[in-house]
Amino acid sequence: MRCSSSSSSSSRVLSHGRHHVAWQPTLPCQAVCNRIQARAADSAGAHAAAVPFARHNPASAEESALPPGKCWLAGVGPGSWDHVTVKVARLIAEAEVLVYDDLGAQELLAAAPAWAEQVYVGKRGGTASIKQPQIDELLVKLCKQGKRVVRLKGGCPSTFSRVSSEAAALSAAGCAYELVPGVSTATAAAVLAGLPLTDAKLAGAFAVVSAHDAAAVDWAAFSDIPTLVILMGGRALPLIVQLLQATGWSDSTPVAVVKAAGTAAQATWFSTLAHVQQDTKPGAPLSPCIIVVGRVAGLPAAWAGAQPS
Amino acid sequence: MRCSSSSSSSSRVLSHGRHHVAWQPTLPCQAVCNRIQARAADSAGAHAAAVPFARHNPASAEESALPPGKCWLAGVGPGSWDHVTVKVARLIAEAEVLVYDDLGAQELLAAAPAWAEQVYVGKRGGTASIKQPQIDELLVKLCKQGKRVVRLKGGCPSTFSRVSSEAAALSAAGCAYELVPGVSTATAAAVLAGLPLTDAKLAGAFAVVSAHDAAAVDWAAFSDIPTLVILMGGRALPLIVQLLQATGWSDSTPVAVVKAAGTAAQATWFSTLAHVQQDTKPGAPLSPCIIVVGRVAGLPAAWAGAQPS
Repeated sequence: MRCSSSSSSSSRVLSHGRHHVAWQPTLPCQAVCNRIQARAADSAGAHAAAVPFARHNPASAEESALPPGKCWLAGVGPGSWDHVTVKVARLIAEAEVLVYDDLGAQELLAAAPAWAEQVYVGKRGGTASIKQPQIDELLVKLCKQGKRVVRLKGGCPSTFSRVSSEAAALSAAGCAYELVPGVSTATAAAVLAGLPLTDAKLAGAFAVVSAHDAAAVDWAAFSDIPTLVILMGGRALPLIVQLLQATGWSDSTPVAVVKAAGTAAQATWFSTLAHVQQDTKPGAPLSPCIIVVGRVAGLPAAWAGAQPS
Repeated sequence: MRCSSSSSSSSRVLSHGRHHVAWQPTLPCQAVCNRIQARAADSAGAHAAAVPFARHNPASAEESALPPGKCWLAGVGPGSWDHVTVKVARLIAEAEVLVYDDLGAQELLAAAPAWAEQVYVGKRGGTASIKQPQIDELLVKLCKQGKRVVRLKGGCPSTFSRVSSEAAALSAAGCAYELVPGVSTATAAAVLAGLPLTDAKLAGAFAVVSAHDAAAVDWAAFSDIPTLVILMGGRALPLIVQLLQATGWSDSTPVAVVKAAGTAAQATWFSTLAHVQQDTKPGAPLSPCIIVVGRVAGLPAAWAGAQPS
């Protein structure tokens, strides 16, 4: 069984007052840049003639390059505009409805069109919150209304995103949908801390696991994996350390903990399995954080200690 | 041990002829958008007044927001502009030297400034090619010349990127450098094929491995991991299937093979471990491809077969 897909690359010319603007929907992030240029120009009091694209923005619901009645299940990366892809930036700029939960960068929402509906469906925190089946139903309802729906998820839909439930519901209801990759926080947190997850000498593979319910994880499954990336492990760090030690990881295994990866509040600790609890004992909660366990986590310290050649 | 980092968010106003343009270096992809707008406008013969930012582009080497004498080790994602992050797009637009290998999207290079040097250091193919230590030396030399060097890598520096060698060399030579995440092809290929790597019921973890030397991989290490992502496994598929079967994966395990993920040539096969060799027997080589093994690889077919509610 084989299926292929390709996207349209046709361009069209739209008329906006006296300006005729070549509008190419496949160009990266043009619409969102227009919008952001407009905000920058507004806030700086720049000459109106300097931002004709923004003053005559072609990304209206009628003129969108996106098809109606479709839901994009899209990842926004770890926590700032920097790591949003140009496709997702364009989707945000042309959405009719944005359905979002707890994003690292709330300013993403400010780049959406003024007429776009924004629906918060976050599930974190102590307050009563929406259940997954209600989110699924909402997406189906909006698609059936013919809306262009962009469902924003932190990181990438590949990784602990609950995208399965939403994709299954949309598919069962006959709604068009598309999964759109983002920068996964699981891989990006390490990079933002200055280290890779693989290394030609130290690590030929890595595994990613959520410690949301740390006691239920089969930690022994990772005994022979050189690099382990643990998401949602901030609160359970003492238990995780204990369970890793019990499944054969030595006390001297390097560990890197990256808090709030990709945001202005990012902080990184480089330690070892034996000392990571003490070293990361914070005044503030450690969550949200990513924990990288394995020899690669010791690389930045080794490089910093290397003698200039 | 703790280290933090944060980026500057100051803005400045540059004068370009009679226009005074608010230029905010932290805004997403403004420079690259300017450049691309200019190209679009040029090719469409649009009115010059419509692209003043582009006609008076502030992203010259003298006016760049980037510090000189630094190397950014940056991931460009799986294969098209769509999945490049806005930070990397901005780096490309402001680079003085681009050092690159075999990228999915050669058009990324076209967005670089006309004055920027471009150095190809690809290692693929049957021809004699540059060795890693030579690339390391090149990056150090360029940094020591005070250049703004952007080292582009397919996917993400986290994953099989040889970034360790380059970061170690730059660090040892006292050169400023920064790792910049991209969309990893390991996670994106699945998403682009419409499937996640984790699922609340089917898969609480995943592992990523390269099969560049399939016979040398410790395949037994992945026996208890629910989802396995195999990179560079196209040529060795028969051997991989045999070794997975030998380490306990059943014949009925779903397998998805995604060829040329994220490019216009993307093709996906959904199969099982028993049938994947036959189902993917192509007229053309299967490489480059990503192989996803595990129950999540069966999700899209299950969704498509679901009855509308």
